Amino acid sequence: MISANEYFDSNVKSLGYTTATGNSTLGVMNPGEYEFGTSKHETMRVIEGEMTVKLPGNSEWVTYKAGEAYEIDANKKFQVKVSTQTSYLCQYK
Amino acid sequence: MISANEYFDSNVKSLGYTTATGNSTLGVMNPGEYEFGTSKHETMRVIEGEMTVKLPGNSEWVTYKAGEAYEIDANKKFQVKVSTQTSYLCQYK
Repeated sequence: MISANEYFDSNVKSLGYTTATGNSTLGVMNPGEYEFGTSKHETMRVIEGEMTVKLPGNSEWVTYKAGEAYEIDANKKFQVKVSTQTSYLCQYK
Repeated sequence: MISANEYFDSNVKSLGYTTATGNSTLGVMNPGEYEFGTSKHETMRVIEGEMTVKLPGNSEWVTYKAGEAYEIDANKKFQVKVSTQTSYLCQYK
């Protein structure tokens, strides 16, 4: 099954699926600022566009460009700002 | 706007968006065999999983793994087989 989800008034949409190594979601964000919460460890990789991110426990915003990735532990909140439509791969592992 | 589409009885789902360099779709395919048609030149990149593809005018099937890409001209048909859930980025350029 491919799960389709929408968040933040449809400004973030994602497709969930399963690979040999775990669960993943592909997603697209419209320009805006979002707070996400994790229930598992996540590895987020920017596919196109760029994300400016404030990771848990950090006070600084860091920008991740296409091909770059960051990780977030389980049960954390983090903030993301995007200024153009930006796509990502989120791997739950 | 992020467009959400489904094809082949929901066995292929995609999200469309626009970047500085053109239009893109992210998608996920369930295991199966599909024939796609292009209306523009497409660059297809496998994100996770793998695709076995018969490109227009070719009689051989070629397997593309995660990170690998292939191109299809406009107004062509091509066949894709996947044996596990497989995700892709399609750039229309």
